[in-house]
Formats: sequence, C-alpha cells, structure tokens
Amino acid sequence: MTNHEFYMDLAIKNAQAMKGQTDPNPLVGSVIVNDNRVVGIGAHLKAGEPHAEIHAIRMAGEKARGGTIYVTLEPCSHHGRTGPCAVAIVEAGIKRVVIATLDPNPLVSGRGVKILEEAGIEVIVGIFEKESRKMNEVFNKFIVSQLPFVTVKAGITLDGKIATASSDSKWITSEEARYDVHKERNVNQAILVGAGTVLKDNPKLTARIPNGRNPIRVILDSTLKIPMESKVVTDKLADTWIFTSQAYQKDKKEKLEESGIKVFITKGGVKVDSREVLEILGKHSVSSVLVEGGGTVNASLIEQRLVDKVIIYIAPKLAGGAAAPTFLEGAGIDKMADAVELTDVTVESIGKDFKFIGYPNYKSDQSQEG
Amino acid sequence: MTNHEFYMDLAIKNAQAMKGQTDPNPLVGSVIVNDNRVVGIGAHLKAGEPHAEIHAIRMAGEKARGGTIYVTLEPCSHHGRTGPCAVAIVEAGIKRVVIATLDPNPLVSGRGVKILEEAGIEVIVGIFEKESRKMNEVFNKFIVSQLPFVTVKAGITLDGKIATASSDSKWITSEEARYDVHKERNVNQAILVGAGTVLKDNPKLTARIPNGRNPIRVILDSTLKIPMESKVVTDKLADTWIFTSQAYQKDKKEKLEESGIKVFITKGGVKVDSREVLEILGKHSVSSVLVEGGGTVNASLIEQRLVDKVIIYIAPKLAGGAAAPTFLEGAGIDKMADAVELTDVTVESIGKDFKFIGYPNYKSDQSQEG
Repeated sequence: MTNHEFYMDLAIKNAQAMKGQTDPNPLVGSVIVNDNRVVGIGAHLKAGEPHAEIHAIRMAGEKARGGTIYVTLEPCSHHGRTGPCAVAIVEAGIKRVVIATLDPNPLVSGRGVKILEEAGIEVIVGIFEKESRKMNEVFNKFIVSQLPFVTVKAGITLDGKIATASSDSKWITSEEARYDVHKERNVNQAILVGAGTVLKDNPKLTARIPNGRNPIRVILDSTLKIPMESKVVTDKLADTWIFTSQAYQKDKKEKLEESGIKVFITKGGVKVDSREVLEILGKHSVSSVLVEGGGTVNASLIEQRLVDKVIIYIAPKLAGGAAAPTFLEGAGIDKMADAVELTDVTVESIGKDFKFIGYPNYKSDQSQEG
Repeated sequence: MTNHEFYMDLAIKNAQAMKGQTDPNPLVGSVIVNDNRVVGIGAHLKAGEPHAEIHAIRMAGEKARGGTIYVTLEPCSHHGRTGPCAVAIVEAGIKRVVIATLDPNPLVSGRGVKILEEAGIEVIVGIFEKESRKMNEVFNKFIVSQLPFVTVKAGITLDGKIATASSDSKWITSEEARYDVHKERNVNQAILVGAGTVLKDNPKLTARIPNGRNPIRVILDSTLKIPMESKVVTDKLADTWIFTSQAYQKDKKEKLEESGIKVFITKGGVKVDSREVLEILGKHSVSSVLVEGGGTVNASLIEQRLVDKVIIYIAPKLAGGAAAPTFLEGAGIDKMADAVELTDVTVESIGKDFKFIGYPNYKSDQSQEG
C-alpha cells in the first residue's frame, strides 16, 4: 500500500462506519495529513450536518495549512449549510487534495476539482476509486437517474432451483444465509415481490435482526388479488404499498386502503410495468429496492435492464425437476453469447451456503442493434 | 500442525505425486522417523512394484529399528509380491505405526492393524483420515462396489441454465474452465453422454491437454440413432462404447461395429438403465466415469444414487428462460427437505468462473421410508 492508499483506506473506513445514518446523503470520509502525521479525520455523519472535509479541517485547525487532505468523494462546489467544501479547503491553506472519485452527478462532476486547481492546489483523483464508488452505489445511481438502485436476491440449489416442481421451498438455504437476507432487507428502503409470492408464502418481509429497520413492502398485484388476511396487510409491522393495473378490483382497493395500505394504480391495462413502479418509487424518494420476487418478476426487471445488483445464495444441494422453477424465467435469451455478464463478482461462504454478489453489465443498445 | 500431522502430510504429498501412475492400485505414501529425523520416505509407484512402506523401510535400513512409520493407508495383511507390509514393519523393528485411514475393503479392513498390535507395536489411526480417503476416492468405491466412481460435471449460468431455451450453449464458461474440464477428462477412465448430446453438439469428448489420456467414450443410445458421421464414430481418437436397448437397429449395430465401435445390448426394452451400464463398465475394469450428459441423464443417475461427486462450473452470467434447461431435470423431488445435500463442498475460482465440487450425501433408505 502506498501512502496515498494508506490514508484513503482510513478515510473509506470512517465513511463506511456511518452506513445507514447519512441518508439521503452519500458516505464520505476524509483525512488530513501534515508532515507525515494525521492531523485531522472526518466523516459525514448526518444529512444537514457538516461534510467530512469540514470536520477534518476543524480538527486539524492551523495544522491543516500546508497539508494534504484525502477525501473519498470530490469536495462539493455548491453552497450548502457550510459553504462549498472546495472553498473551505482553499481557505484552510491545504496544498494537496487526494480524491477517490469525482462527483457521480454529471451536472456538478469536476467543479470541485476546478475550484481547487484554480487556487493552485495539486489534485490527485482515483485512489481507491472503485471501492469508494461501490460504497455509495445506491446514492450514485439515484442521484443521476432518480430510479432506485435495484438488487435482485434469490436463494437457489446448486442445480438452480428456487423451489421443487410442487412449489415447496422451505428451506433451500441455511439459517445463517436467511439471517443474512434480513441484513440485506435492513439496508434497503423497499422490498418488492409479486402477488404470487404473497399468495404462496404469506411472508412478513421484515428485517428480523436487532435494531432492524423494516423496508416498505412493495407488492405488484395487477388485480388486487392478495387476501385481506395476508400478513403484509394485517401485521402493521411496516408500510405496504401495492401497485396494481387498470384491471384492479375497485371494492378491494377501498378495503385495502381502510387497512392502511397505499394502493397505486399504474398505467398498464392488465399488467404492472416494473419500470413505472420504479419511477413512482423514485418520486417518493425510495432510493433502494430489494427484489425477492419469483423468476417472472426477476426476468421482467433483467430484460428491462433495471437490475443493478444480484445477490444469489447457493445452497450445496440438488433438487432436480425439469418443471422446478429457477430465479430467472421469462423468455430468456436466444444465444448464450447474449447472456448478461456480471462484473465485480464476489463469493463468500455463509453457513453451509455461498453468497454470490455481482453487477449486471448490460451491453449498450448500440452494440445490441449492430 | 502436530508432529504426526507434519509427517503424515509429507506422506500424503508423496502419495499424491504418483496420481495416474498406480492404477488400478491406490495412492499410498509413507515416512519413517527416528529420533526426530526422517530416515526413510516411500510411495507406491506402480502396480506390481513394492508398496510405499517397503520403499521407506529399505531406505531407512537399520535406522527403521525403534522408529515410527507414517503410512497413508493401513499396511496390507495379504501376500503380494513382497509379502504383507504389516509383517515387514514388524520385522524392521518399528515400534509405532501412524495410519491415516484403514483399508476401505471391509473384508480386510483392520487386519493389518491386528498383525501390528499382536506384535506389540503401538498403532495410531486417523491422522488426516479425510484427506487420505479423498485421495483414493475412486479406488475406495471401486474396490468395495465394483461400480465405477461417477462424477457429474456441468457448466451453468448463475441462474442455473446449461443452454438457452433454443438450445444454444456456446459458450457458458470461460476458456480456463473449459480447459479444466479437459483435465477432469484426463483423470477419468470413461466419459459418458447421452445420444442427444452427440446429435446436438457432435463433440470429440477427448482430453485436450498436453499428454492428455483420452477416456473411453460411453454413449447411451437406446436405438443407435447417432449418425455414422459423428466424431465419436469416425475420429478414432479414443475407444467408443455404445450402450443400447433391445430396441436397437440391427443393421446400424453392424455398421458401427465395422467402424470399430463396441456395442453393448442392455436388458432394457426401450431404455438403457444407467445402473446396468455402470455394472458392465465395472466388469470391464472401468473404475471412474465422468458424466457430461444433459439434465435427464444426470437426473436418472442422481435418482438412483449412482453419483459420487459433482463438479459444477458456474459462470457469472444470466441467461433467463423458463424453458431453458438445467443440469438436473427429470421429475425432481417433491419436498425441498428431501434435496440431496452435498458434503465436503469446495469452491475455487477458475478464470471468470467458479468451480464447485461436492459429494452427494444420500439419506439412507431407512430414513426415506420412515
């Protein structure tokens, strides 16, 4: 590890420690070094409070002068509660700025660097860029697209099944993996399933970990067919938002609303379009969605290139069955060469199972047409 | 690592180094230690030649007296070319024997230990037992059952598909994973596929690595429908054995035999029973089979509990498709709790892909009936 990497690593660690407490702002960490000593550290702690750089500059005081500041995200150029961080860095007399990644918002990206360079400060960009981007993957997507960051999660057997041919799925993965799912729910603002999952499993869809924060339960239900006795309707453990089509049952809508359920009528005649649902969620400031639907819901999202991340728990067991469902159904692709590749793939073992994480790398529209 | 483990590890390393040159005998390694110094090492090098212990005893000479011998497999009690190893150990004046695993053959297991103990020698069993058993997994099964050790291999997408809905499968896995398959072919005596695979892919089924040994190509073909132009018929790169049912085409059989193909007519009226095929292969001294069939062949083997090992290459990509095939089809199980668990599961990355290895742990017949 170089010196730059060493200090940026510390800045990233401090940023990451604040996970879950900065929403809707990104995680940011900062370190100021002068004469080979750390003279200030900072992190963004809470929306509305100072940015990471400001905390570090205050801690360093006069020792910031002539020093190097490390910051995981490009210092801002806009006037928030504490003025632009880029200006504060100039005023503190810092002579070098090391940045992990530029601002993800193309409208402002590079502006902070410009302020710094115009003040004669040396700027280095790109130290642990990938790590820093990943840390704010949800924020980075939402700020640019106003669509939530979508994670598809599934638990499968090694032969790719999410249930037996007779629809039994209890349980595929180990207790440890199922506990891990609750942690994933906890870091998502909403959890999305189809009505079929509610009918079949009657799940609670809550984050059952200590201090778990329950996500909004989003149900795609084109006719409002889920029973009034469903846990997501009766248990009041979290908000439930149902997205339906023009073919919804009017009296059922009233009954659901009387039970405190929010019902969104989408444009689709008989089907609910996933993209429209995500757009509506985005407008309601929902920046992250965990999809725990079946293979049809998942396929519709993948086909529309709306999935940002895939988390698959593979249980080392074999179910068999030509008719047993997989987590990705629909029409599928025709040529294997057109499969959606995943990037930045990691695998870790959890209990007896293996957790795969990857990021779909959709080919560009141009290359598909060509 | 304890002292025992340290020396047994060396014995295992020497045994493993002989992989492929001891058939039909197992891999065995041995180390003799006296006064904290290694005074002899040995390994079984070739069928018909001395066992590992004999080589080590000869190397140690007089220094074997009073020493400890480490051996990965229980010393034999039968008279081969060099007399029972257990007796040779007694005669060498060795005072302690550390054994990784007893003889897998229940007819002789424990007999070597008995000879040693009756001579007043201290015997310790079980140091690196699992590692030693795994090293001879093929031998251990064959010596007991006379059935070949069966490995099912498949390359799948992360969503469990072995082809698209339109049967395209080129390529799922990376070049590195496909090269690894050739290494697996090289260590198996036969490779088994259904006629469907020959019709669809016209594969060579050879081990295309430097010094690769081509396995016997075993084709299950109930009517002898594979074309005379198939590579497995024409290329003469390896033996091809076709197993057919009573419903075979008589003239096709003659034509195939004229091309040097061996045709086995099994008892099945219109189908070929996998167990019968394995029994016939066993009678022909084929101790290991790599199955590269489709989901139906694989399911028939799993359902009959004939699969000993599963090797799955998972490519981090998504194909989708409710109609796309998986590597395990058939009827499948009804309850997820009845899935076949895999034990000793390992995962390693190969190129972009991940190689899963596991061993099916079939529940006993009793517990299934109960």
